[in-house]
Amino acid sequence: MKKHNFNAGPSVLADEVIENAAKAVLDFNGSGLSLLSISHRSKDFDAVMAEADALFRELLHIPDNYKIFYIGGGASTMFYEVPANFLGKKAGYVNTGVWSKKAIKEAKRYGEVEILATSEDRNFTYIPKGFAIPSDLDYLHITSNNTIYGTEYHEDLTSPVPLIADMSSDILSRPVDVTKYAMIYGGAQKNLAPAGVVFAIIREDMLDKQVRDLPTMVSFRTHVENNSMFNTPPVFPIYVLKETLKWLKSIGGVEEIYRRNQEKAQLLYDEIDRNPLFRGTVEKQDRSLMNICFVMADGYEELAPEFLEYTKAHDIVGIKGHRLVGGFRASCYNALKKESVEVLVKCMRDFAEKYAK
Amino acid sequence: MKKHNFNAGPSVLADEVIENAAKAVLDFNGSGLSLLSISHRSKDFDAVMAEADALFRELLHIPDNYKIFYIGGGASTMFYEVPANFLGKKAGYVNTGVWSKKAIKEAKRYGEVEILATSEDRNFTYIPKGFAIPSDLDYLHITSNNTIYGTEYHEDLTSPVPLIADMSSDILSRPVDVTKYAMIYGGAQKNLAPAGVVFAIIREDMLDKQVRDLPTMVSFRTHVENNSMFNTPPVFPIYVLKETLKWLKSIGGVEEIYRRNQEKAQLLYDEIDRNPLFRGTVEKQDRSLMNICFVMADGYEELAPEFLEYTKAHDIVGIKGHRLVGGFRASCYNALKKESVEVLVKCMRDFAEKYAK
Repeated sequence: MKKHNFNAGPSVLADEVIENAAKAVLDFNGSGLSLLSISHRSKDFDAVMAEADALFRELLHIPDNYKIFYIGGGASTMFYEVPANFLGKKAGYVNTGVWSKKAIKEAKRYGEVEILATSEDRNFTYIPKGFAIPSDLDYLHITSNNTIYGTEYHEDLTSPVPLIADMSSDILSRPVDVTKYAMIYGGAQKNLAPAGVVFAIIREDMLDKQVRDLPTMVSFRTHVENNSMFNTPPVFPIYVLKETLKWLKSIGGVEEIYRRNQEKAQLLYDEIDRNPLFRGTVEKQDRSLMNICFVMADGYEELAPEFLEYTKAHDIVGIKGHRLVGGFRASCYNALKKESVEVLVKCMRDFAEKYAK
Repeated sequence: MKKHNFNAGPSVLADEVIENAAKAVLDFNGSGLSLLSISHRSKDFDAVMAEADALFRELLHIPDNYKIFYIGGGASTMFYEVPANFLGKKAGYVNTGVWSKKAIKEAKRYGEVEILATSEDRNFTYIPKGFAIPSDLDYLHITSNNTIYGTEYHEDLTSPVPLIADMSSDILSRPVDVTKYAMIYGGAQKNLAPAGVVFAIIREDMLDKQVRDLPTMVSFRTHVENNSMFNTPPVFPIYVLKETLKWLKSIGGVEEIYRRNQEKAQLLYDEIDRNPLFRGTVEKQDRSLMNICFVMADGYEELAPEFLEYTKAHDIVGIKGHRLVGGFRASCYNALKKESVEVLVKCMRDFAEKYAK
């Protein structure tokens, strides 16, 4: 790809994944058929599903008592399907920003929601810690990485109740102790695939905890029991997800990508911290490796539009910050190359050389 | 494409659509970014959505008081979302097979379901006609084309209550008087796009008829009010849908494709009727133009596996009949070329020459 793609999502995918996807659109596995025109019940697609399952398990060390399934839609679908399946009386939620709030809003339709902690007091610039988790909750829900505010949990919580995490924007970017979670889900359009598919990793015993009768498509049991084939799954996004998992394995897996992600993030955070024109917006210990938010430092605010133009001229796309935070957001997902971060850092340096007072 | 693709769905798309999709995966609009990696809120994708809307309206003569929206998932998603939105007391359903039954099953969770007519008595080999439609129904639901059984409504019903049609498998294959419907929806993976997106055409006044509080993602209002952008839509399938609409317009629109679909279907039905080895399974007046079902004639049943092998050797794929009907099903969607039907017909003739008693 010719651009440095810092889009927050849908976002950058590995070059070879893109190339393989394009080839499969033209001819899938030498079948003489486009990947877009094959039956989801064909043997060739069964193999895609099986390979995705095996790779996901291997890369994230997912134990056998967890099931993986895929549905169409996005994390927003899960915001109501999770409480529809599991919220009988009361659930706990941690409010770390827009996506948590959306999840909380949908959960309230199904039962009592207790906000165990929130970082709203300081515009979601940190991850709340040390909060108590009552043992009478149906589950505890967290958003492991907050795309808009650029915060991220760097440790897996220990929870006395089933822990459910929306990992849309940091799945497979770092090692995760899956056994600490009852369910992990996410829209796949950041680190895994194009938009249109949700992944879910669910501990088997949770399937017995469905608290109400549900439409067939809303019940997680349906999708586990039918191996994501109750209805036609989003074939193409799942294929690309499988290709991304394959690529991730080929470069050394989650441990290696975590090393690269740390390296990229450090490059950029170091520059933010030493460059007089910019400042980070997030408390240092909670800074996200995936979405790096920064603004112009005091006294330089008026240069923001010019800096944006300057980066565009250097083939950088997608770094305009979300309107709720302003400034800039450089999303550094797995497939973003270190070279792209270096180009951005050089832009920041050159810009500072020109304008630093 | 090198194969004659008679798959029931996901299914054949036009060659130029496939080619444009592959190009866009590599570089979308000369942006230097893959279509899989662009923001759904970018101007370039806004243009895709606007063009899809304009083309859909033009091709199907959709009046201004109808809105078009897209969601992730499939028709199975709509089977519960339609009654969730509109079934307050009682809805009418016509049972024309598996997909109708699935829709009926989900509707029963939300209110009373009156089966106004069914063709189950003769294994769904015809479309019920002349049934009464009570005026106290919230809506009447039909499946306009029955993929598994190969039956199709050839006239738009006149209904005193809002008519809602699942047109997953015959949308844009024939002229439809949209004004007779309150809502038309379908999975797009037959005549429009790869799997993973649902289209919906809804008369504006229906949006005021939502009968209960619903999760944000389930309410049709959400998707209309947010122009299908409440959450990240399935970008790639929507792009391919737009390309398919463009292709359809380029060849002469729905009127021309209807002519071609009639021509293809007649070729195949004529052969089924005159060939002593085969017989059709559907009453003639209700035969689908999209899914053409036939079996070995009496006395030739044991030749079925051999005929299947024979067609495979001639690059024909996807004609094995659904297990509920047996025999063969040749799905002749819009993008299937007449040449493919001719190859199938020739196979049937040559096979009969060899085996006719």
